[in-house]
Amino acid sequence: MVSKILSRRDLDFLLYEWLDVEALTERERFAEHSRETFDAFLDVSAQIAERDFAPHNRRNDLEEPTFDGVRVEVHPEVGAALKVFNETGLISGTMDAELGGLQLPAVVARACFLWFQAANIATSSYPLLTMANAHLLTTYGSPAQIARFVQPMVEGRFTGTMCLSEPQAGSSLSDVLTRAVSHEDGSYRITGSKMWISGGDHELSETIVHLVLARVAGAPPGVKSLSLFIVPKHHVAEDGTVGERNGVSLSGLNHKMGWRGTTNAVLSFDDATGYLVGEEGKGLAYMFHMMNEARIGVGAGAVALGYTGYLHALDYARERLQGRPVAAKDPAAPPVPIVDHPDVRRMLLASKAYVEGGLGLILYASKLLDEPSAENDLLLDVLTPIVKAWPSQWCRVANDHAIQVHGGYGYTREYPVEQFYRDNRLNSIHEGTDGIQALDLLGRKAVMKGGAGLALLLSTIRASCTGDLGAPVLAVCDRVASSTETLWKDGDPTVALANATAYLDAVGHLVIAWIWLSQIDAVGDKTGAFYDGKRLAARYFITHELPKIGPMLDLLDSRDTLLADLDPAWLG
Amino acid sequence: MVSKILSRRDLDFLLYEWLDVEALTERERFAEHSRETFDAFLDVSAQIAERDFAPHNRRNDLEEPTFDGVRVEVHPEVGAALKVFNETGLISGTMDAELGGLQLPAVVARACFLWFQAANIATSSYPLLTMANAHLLTTYGSPAQIARFVQPMVEGRFTGTMCLSEPQAGSSLSDVLTRAVSHEDGSYRITGSKMWISGGDHELSETIVHLVLARVAGAPPGVKSLSLFIVPKHHVAEDGTVGERNGVSLSGLNHKMGWRGTTNAVLSFDDATGYLVGEEGKGLAYMFHMMNEARIGVGAGAVALGYTGYLHALDYARERLQGRPVAAKDPAAPPVPIVDHPDVRRMLLASKAYVEGGLGLILYASKLLDEPSAENDLLLDVLTPIVKAWPSQWCRVANDHAIQVHGGYGYTREYPVEQFYRDNRLNSIHEGTDGIQALDLLGRKAVMKGGAGLALLLSTIRASCTGDLGAPVLAVCDRVASSTETLWKDGDPTVALANATAYLDAVGHLVIAWIWLSQIDAVGDKTGAFYDGKRLAARYFITHELPKIGPMLDLLDSRDTLLADLDPAWLG
Repeated sequence: MVSKILSRRDLDFLLYEWLDVEALTERERFAEHSRETFDAFLDVSAQIAERDFAPHNRRNDLEEPTFDGVRVEVHPEVGAALKVFNETGLISGTMDAELGGLQLPAVVARACFLWFQAANIATSSYPLLTMANAHLLTTYGSPAQIARFVQPMVEGRFTGTMCLSEPQAGSSLSDVLTRAVSHEDGSYRITGSKMWISGGDHELSETIVHLVLARVAGAPPGVKSLSLFIVPKHHVAEDGTVGERNGVSLSGLNHKMGWRGTTNAVLSFDDATGYLVGEEGKGLAYMFHMMNEARIGVGAGAVALGYTGYLHALDYARERLQGRPVAAKDPAAPPVPIVDHPDVRRMLLASKAYVEGGLGLILYASKLLDEPSAENDLLLDVLTPIVKAWPSQWCRVANDHAIQVHGGYGYTREYPVEQFYRDNRLNSIHEGTDGIQALDLLGRKAVMKGGAGLALLLSTIRASCTGDLGAPVLAVCDRVASSTETLWKDGDPTVALANATAYLDAVGHLVIAWIWLSQIDAVGDKTGAFYDGKRLAARYFITHELPKIGPMLDLLDSRDTLLADLDPAWLG
Repeated sequence: MVSKILSRRDLDFLLYEWLDVEALTERERFAEHSRETFDAFLDVSAQIAERDFAPHNRRNDLEEPTFDGVRVEVHPEVGAALKVFNETGLISGTMDAELGGLQLPAVVARACFLWFQAANIATSSYPLLTMANAHLLTTYGSPAQIARFVQPMVEGRFTGTMCLSEPQAGSSLSDVLTRAVSHEDGSYRITGSKMWISGGDHELSETIVHLVLARVAGAPPGVKSLSLFIVPKHHVAEDGTVGERNGVSLSGLNHKMGWRGTTNAVLSFDDATGYLVGEEGKGLAYMFHMMNEARIGVGAGAVALGYTGYLHALDYARERLQGRPVAAKDPAAPPVPIVDHPDVRRMLLASKAYVEGGLGLILYASKLLDEPSAENDLLLDVLTPIVKAWPSQWCRVANDHAIQVHGGYGYTREYPVEQFYRDNRLNSIHEGTDGIQALDLLGRKAVMKGGAGLALLLSTIRASCTGDLGAPVLAVCDRVASSTETLWKDGDPTVALANATAYLDAVGHLVIAWIWLSQIDAVGDKTGAFYDGKRLAARYFITHELPKIGPMLDLLDSRDTLLADLDPAWLG
């Protein structure tokens, strides 16, 4: 049976033929691994995703978690699936062996986790957040904190969250009001309200380790005075024993359009005991460690949802008979599979270009983590807003196309594609909206270090620009470099950032064009339908999609300030 | 209180300052009307929409109609709202006075009905379909059929549906299998299964008048041998008395992503008594009368949903405080309303340009019905696929932006914008998908009568192209004319239609640019925020949006056949 969750053939191509992930085993960190161990983890991920995650995806959507005032109930299938997941060891897939981790390359762990995201984005959110939480603590927490809080997460006993937003402060973390008061025993007392906490309450684990951004009493306003605290749902003894409830309570669950199987909570912290991570005032810097990882995770989730939507649509388009070619004259001729109609092909080929391009970007970015160097770190830094926002936007278009390919059926809950579409809508919002990513890209990443990051990205792209498809991509590189310069020529952020979203859209499409060029470089002159498909999607993206950014770059070059200047009274 | 359903100020501008609807009262048909009667119907529509339709919109969404095997239950609020609506007489708003109609201009009736669609798209669907059904029958039905079936619809006793699709035949009506056998009493016996029947079963009316497309036994295949039948849910005596059930039964309800308050049925016809409308073999031609009206209705619904979403987003953006301008340095400065952020303005201004442009198009098209002439009929014919598809696509983007402006809150069911987004997703599918509209525009409308329709559209647009904003629109007119010629130069539909959707997108944007030019022509040099807003939105659309179609026209000019030629095996 061909899976409709993800394409293992494509993953194999991207990992082994394109990114040469096997070569990573020559690095000391991955020396215990081999193609065989990578394949074994990919195999088991596909198997568990199909058997334990996918079957309750719709139930997660139809019957949300409930809160009776005391306990939050989620479906038993969620806990059962997570138990199986935890047994794979993938919860600590990239962590050090000495902490019980598998020391897998990030790129392989990412490929494995995509199976769970594509099969059931809601259930996969619990381990996604737990992993990001554990990775932050292993980097910035003390050895005692790691033993007390991370070790149980690795063992599957605890789960983790990230608590940044508050009801009045989402995108603007400088407005965080949660406060921390130091206590004589060295801990702190945390008081405040946190919003949009995924996995914020449930009974899936012995306790929940919240990582909470708060301001120590007396600290000045702004983001630079925020500190980070571990605030467990229950008190946890130093040996890891779980005790009484801490001062953390659930104020209510949020009810969303999609992603409905993940509890999403308003949490109230009332004199809750918290433990400072690292130093006071460095909370946001630490949190960015988690947030950058979470942003790749969000991009990966968007790719996963788009990818599974595409596979469902492709399957449907091959099975569903309807209509005849436009040049056909005989109404009695048998109907053809709808994949024969050009507009259905357009939607499918565009979707393929989006999801396989997006998947390539996610894996490329993940592999940069496996070969750390000043250059790779810089490249990842520039790419992160694109890794987060581009799939959230374009792989969602693949979900939109998947509905359209299914026609009226796609709009019903009898088919899964409408859920994928609703689920994927969140990815443009959480972990920093698309608009925030645009400001990050043009306002910070494109200009940091004198523009070194952007220059590195463009030179990396230029190196892939060969062949007839390379020329238009090369031309866009030059245009992006010159537009960036034009925008920032007088250093006025109001002018430069007035159309930041157009910049993100343009650079995003350039990056994906490059990912496609690079993929077909790996294809070379190999023969067969799979490779022909890669060539076709690359050609489609570069000839049908990439030109769309011309008008965006024209707009940027004009330094148009219509949006910055307008009087809001005019809006209506 | 300013309404968040629609803007009466904008409707007044469009109807009276732009389209000069008052002048219609000089026509004999509308001589009994005046600005005062128009205003009275607009007032009452706004009032009833706010009071009787909007309040149960969310309940319609959360608690779908149920079927216990015998009866379909919808919420009592639906029936109560429809009762109030029926008392306005708007159900027969455009119909002849001798049939009990109000003889309102179509453009005024359309403006009135938009209030109900924006307030509650699901509840408004019942009268929408009933009206389209009644209009078809008053045109093609016999006097006896009108008395027996239409009169009770006008009185609010019956409702109507259209039954075209079947489980195996949606877009492709030539595959309709429902068959009709003539009976000695002059009626027919109808047998088959019909799919996606909105309002297909319920207890809101004494009976339901189904208009059913079927093939008379022995007729050849293809669409030209389809006939149209009246098939009531119950037998109806000639005096309109409702009797026993006819052979029509509910096989099941469809469960959709949105639009959940409208029952949507699979109907089974089993030797049901039906009455031929007009002549055998002309069913599809008659049905197109209803379908063209329904397509304007779908476009109007898409505008209505986008418009109300925009108003909600604008209101939120003015109230919600968050963040500071990008040039601000002081983190202790108070947060600003998010409408101050350029990216939020971009989403709002784009939405305004989409929904007010879309509304203009809907009203312009409706007014063409009020001044019938060979020229106006032709123009409406060319415009119909755009009227249907453009708002379905772009006013849905306004709904997407409305979620994004609300941030995380917009993704929750605590705010209405997520429902608008889900509801609006259907409009690109029903009454002919966007892809079907594209084939209709480029394959039929652009070439019919030697291209006279397109030539008329372009000359009408050119006449509005004055001022600095007129020049780019004029240039696009020339490009569209030349691209159309290039596409059809050898008459090969496979090549011409390979990128039909890009053509629809391009011409759609051109049409909306023209609608904006025409609106600001009516604005002239009037002063005040409202008129400044119109100028701003026009400028935004023509400078930020219209250029997007350049690459589409380039693609069309290249006669690219990537999509027509591809081997589906390459797709994955």
